[in-house]
Amino acid sequence: MQNVFHKILKNNKAEFTNDEVILYPDQILTQDATGTVVYLQLEAMGIKKVKPFSIMYIDHNTLQVGNENQDDHKYLQSLSQKIGAHISKAGNGICHSVHLETFSKPGQVVVGSDSHTPTAGGAGMLGIGAGGLDVAVAMAGEAFYLPRPRVVGIRLEGELGPWVSAKDVILYILQQLTVKGGYGKVIEYFGPGIKKLSVYDRATICNLGAEMGATSSVFPSDEITLEFLKSVGREYDWRELVADSDAHYDELYDINLSNIEPLIALPHSPDNVVKVSEVKGIPLAQIAIGSCTNSSMRDMAVVAEVLKDRRVAQSTDLVITPGTRRVLTMMIETGALKNIVDAGARILEVACGPCNGVGQSPASGSNSLRTYNRNYKGRSGTADANVYLASPETAAASALTGCITDPRGLGKYPQISLPEFYPVNINMIIKPVKTSEVVEVIKGPNIKPVPIGKPVPDCIEGTVELKAGDNVSTDDILPGGAKMLALRSNVPGCVPHVFSRIDPEFKNKVQNLSSSWFVIGGENYGQGSSREHAVMVPMSIGMRVVIAKSFARIYRQNLTNYGVVPLIFTKSADYDLIELCDELIIERFHEQIKNNHIEVYNKTKDFSFTTSCSLTNRELVILFHGGLMNYTKTKLEAK
Amino acid sequence: MQNVFHKILKNNKAEFTNDEVILYPDQILTQDATGTVVYLQLEAMGIKKVKPFSIMYIDHNTLQVGNENQDDHKYLQSLSQKIGAHISKAGNGICHSVHLETFSKPGQVVVGSDSHTPTAGGAGMLGIGAGGLDVAVAMAGEAFYLPRPRVVGIRLEGELGPWVSAKDVILYILQQLTVKGGYGKVIEYFGPGIKKLSVYDRATICNLGAEMGATSSVFPSDEITLEFLKSVGREYDWRELVADSDAHYDELYDINLSNIEPLIALPHSPDNVVKVSEVKGIPLAQIAIGSCTNSSMRDMAVVAEVLKDRRVAQSTDLVITPGTRRVLTMMIETGALKNIVDAGARILEVACGPCNGVGQSPASGSNSLRTYNRNYKGRSGTADANVYLASPETAAASALTGCITDPRGLGKYPQISLPEFYPVNINMIIKPVKTSEVVEVIKGPNIKPVPIGKPVPDCIEGTVELKAGDNVSTDDILPGGAKMLALRSNVPGCVPHVFSRIDPEFKNKVQNLSSSWFVIGGENYGQGSSREHAVMVPMSIGMRVVIAKSFARIYRQNLTNYGVVPLIFTKSADYDLIELCDELIIERFHEQIKNNHIEVYNKTKDFSFTTSCSLTNRELVILFHGGLMNYTKTKLEAK
Repeated sequence: MQNVFHKILKNNKAEFTNDEVILYPDQILTQDATGTVVYLQLEAMGIKKVKPFSIMYIDHNTLQVGNENQDDHKYLQSLSQKIGAHISKAGNGICHSVHLETFSKPGQVVVGSDSHTPTAGGAGMLGIGAGGLDVAVAMAGEAFYLPRPRVVGIRLEGELGPWVSAKDVILYILQQLTVKGGYGKVIEYFGPGIKKLSVYDRATICNLGAEMGATSSVFPSDEITLEFLKSVGREYDWRELVADSDAHYDELYDINLSNIEPLIALPHSPDNVVKVSEVKGIPLAQIAIGSCTNSSMRDMAVVAEVLKDRRVAQSTDLVITPGTRRVLTMMIETGALKNIVDAGARILEVACGPCNGVGQSPASGSNSLRTYNRNYKGRSGTADANVYLASPETAAASALTGCITDPRGLGKYPQISLPEFYPVNINMIIKPVKTSEVVEVIKGPNIKPVPIGKPVPDCIEGTVELKAGDNVSTDDILPGGAKMLALRSNVPGCVPHVFSRIDPEFKNKVQNLSSSWFVIGGENYGQGSSREHAVMVPMSIGMRVVIAKSFARIYRQNLTNYGVVPLIFTKSADYDLIELCDELIIERFHEQIKNNHIEVYNKTKDFSFTTSCSLTNRELVILFHGGLMNYTKTKLEAK
Repeated sequence: MQNVFHKILKNNKAEFTNDEVILYPDQILTQDATGTVVYLQLEAMGIKKVKPFSIMYIDHNTLQVGNENQDDHKYLQSLSQKIGAHISKAGNGICHSVHLETFSKPGQVVVGSDSHTPTAGGAGMLGIGAGGLDVAVAMAGEAFYLPRPRVVGIRLEGELGPWVSAKDVILYILQQLTVKGGYGKVIEYFGPGIKKLSVYDRATICNLGAEMGATSSVFPSDEITLEFLKSVGREYDWRELVADSDAHYDELYDINLSNIEPLIALPHSPDNVVKVSEVKGIPLAQIAIGSCTNSSMRDMAVVAEVLKDRRVAQSTDLVITPGTRRVLTMMIETGALKNIVDAGARILEVACGPCNGVGQSPASGSNSLRTYNRNYKGRSGTADANVYLASPETAAASALTGCITDPRGLGKYPQISLPEFYPVNINMIIKPVKTSEVVEVIKGPNIKPVPIGKPVPDCIEGTVELKAGDNVSTDDILPGGAKMLALRSNVPGCVPHVFSRIDPEFKNKVQNLSSSWFVIGGENYGQGSSREHAVMVPMSIGMRVVIAKSFARIYRQNLTNYGVVPLIFTKSADYDLIELCDELIIERFHEQIKNNHIEVYNKTKDFSFTTSCSLTNRELVILFHGGLMNYTKTKLEAK
């Protein structure tokens, strides 16, 4: 009665508590946007060698406007060689796409510092995205803790019609389940419909599961998986892995693929999905095909067939980013690249590309149709651009007209015959060196050590340096965007930007902050992106306690991980009684927090109020240590 | 006794004064970095239709980090269609390379808003780079004025040895003549040695003539030119054009090609040239092949042969930017691209690429070897990087080892057989529309009108708002770099950056400046890049007069062109007597300047000093009008 998810966990010898799954990942994947800080954390914890198979992909910050990006790359390459990790050089491809082709193993677990790590589920591998520090700890050989998920079964039947592809399937599911529908869940696909979906199609579906907030998505490993592994020269990595016929699922859905039409997500949410036919004719200033969602040889081959002997509309730019060097090579050999170039497309470097705002920002107020996975407002780098998400079929059809176009009007759906074997060329993946002591770690001026949390004292005193409203996002705490990406390895460099959206003058008082101060927040404090810099940066300049009406889940976890105390007002109304510069005191903190009832004294206004903080015992220990790095360091030293 | 230069001018029906050549260009070339302001100037002058054949190339700002670049592109595309200009879309290639292939005509003149416009000289066409406003005026159908150049003849004999190519020839000439050696000169090549140089080789040589400060460089049009034009499907554009056997040259040099070895320019000047063999072994963090200097199919074919079945060194990044879409297509068809990709190179978009700091900035303090044309300190986008310039042969050999490598160690020089015919595909070049009234000009928020100068009053009063030292560069006046490139179409957006290197607090007083103020400069004020923004931006906020010990030539010309008065201290020592905030008065300016003796009264310190200003009559008229735009507008309205 086991489903695929449970079979993988069993294979992993994972343990279960009431709330958590405790596992040791088989593989770790990192990339240069989120991974530099992982490496800095490894150094801070004194880790000399990584334990599981680990690989760093240079795929995000490949434009290199200014020295910062290549400083990062040189650091990552040299440290990878020293600590026993592989590194995939810039130009080799997108982490998830290269990983699927080169390292995916049915039945195993890969944890990655990237939210689209579940892409590996296309090959029957459990992929889980996680915060950088959790990834660093797992690289050190320690356990990885996962909130115990519910398992959702989605049974597919029927067969996709002409001009409808995997992207439409997952857009359909997003439309039904919404961007919150996967929260705390693993989504598992099965049923007769999966037999017509290639591993690339399956990977596209698992990839966009992240947009539902799902912990992971996974397909079985079957004869189609075997065929895929054969094609990339790794037949030996195959094992069959299918759910028992009486497998249990916490929720169950049925989808008939035959009923799905070409779909499109309207701005500014991936679940804002309608039929392409309902919005046809909207003019497009840009069309972009690529990303870890839709850049496989299948996708490129379909696009090439559509563009062959045709011409991209004058009014639009068609921008192509092949997902991996292997795909690019096949595009050259099959003539697909020539057809695409001849039609008037722009071919960018093999990389993540414009997906997260790294280049190709559209014109102001214009519309861009992309085969990517996210269309949040401003993510493209242009604050008022409108980004649509659709399949490569819809994108290619729209490129010919310059406006949103239903591909079914193009006539006969081309029969794509994919190569039986893909060339195996791993010369851009660098192995660690055995004599690692001779490797010199290269640290340019943009590489700064990560800040380390401090153990929490029993009496906490400090002033309120920021009072924020409801729904403050991590972007409000620390801005995102391409320019800040260059500072991910440089926490001191981020400091002038902290809270800049909430209080543009905050940077002027940074110099005079004490080593222990408070933030007061409203509801849902710390929503949005999971990046740890939104905790690390204010922590590095003394943020000791955040008291809010409520927290976004990951932000609260990040606070604990960095030794910052997250407290929740018992009575929301107390929020109104506290002002900027009030001096707050918490006495007997260690005893109070164990009782989950923490009294805070407002010395300035002379009154007390109560707060709570539901932490597990493990989290309490981490907090007392001043964060997960200190805790892990202590644990490793004790071994 | 006519040389090729004079034959072209005769063909153009150019007129001569003692100082100047007055001509009407056959073609105008602009690009998206310098060209947006040309278009804004056309609009400001009320030009409805361009007169000569004109084409705008989108090739510089193709990374599009933020909305600004694509805002520019949409503006340029829409205005091109309206005013009767062609436009080459992003992805079609580098202006000079596409122009050579598609539009070059022996015996004609192309003027371009880019210093490497002389590249067309490879096909017997006279290419001249010029400032934006001069280009705008020529687009309006008015004359183009060229300081009358001396003509230097360089006679080539012999034949290049294995692994030595055109880049080495021009590096050799740079070594001999230095970066100042071409100032006020046209360089004309002839002799038996040119018969073994293809049009692409010749174009490489003409391209780097700009680094000697030459007005232009030109080769004859002969049977090799015919062969080239045949290969690109334009046999009909050929005409023979060779110097008379007794042609006169103002200077003459002889070079034997057989004596040239692989050469390399060391940081930070293109004339800092030594033999590759003298510096072999220096480690390279990056190697970049491309740019308008070295990105032809010949260059790519040689690189592909070197890389075939070999592997780029792990320690370095090899970055390739093909020059045109046609080259990319041929690379696909001939297998060259596959060889290069297989070896582990990074393939960037067809564009100017990293040459002027748009992406691929090297790691801090690292070494980058490039086949480009300039290696000024900081131009790569990394302030302390060391950039070397060399041939594609040397670059490819160095990519295999990760350090500077003499290609002659690679054994037999590959025999490159170039395609007899190149595919003709101009579907990324958009023609102007005939019904131009229906074209809507798209102006995103980054597109702002250019400031218009004001006629100079007869009594000029104002305070000294800046006092600068010697050798102030246009970068000091207005910083360069990729981020400022995005603001080229937005003069108000540039204002906060004006004089920021000289006086970081200048931006704080911008709000309170009067509409007429003075700058005091030392020797060689306004040296460096020719960009007009270094005049336009301070002019837009009231800069009326600059008094300096001496001016850089182009900066002085730009001041006049924008109606700012350029005065030179009669006695340098007077410079010391003037302080910031002094109030200065010039009375009876119109009469005084005609006599070239201008008395300035320092009201604050109560003394007078004299200045001069040697302007031609034409320049005086322009200055009185408040600049060339006002002057041209008046002239056109009178017609």
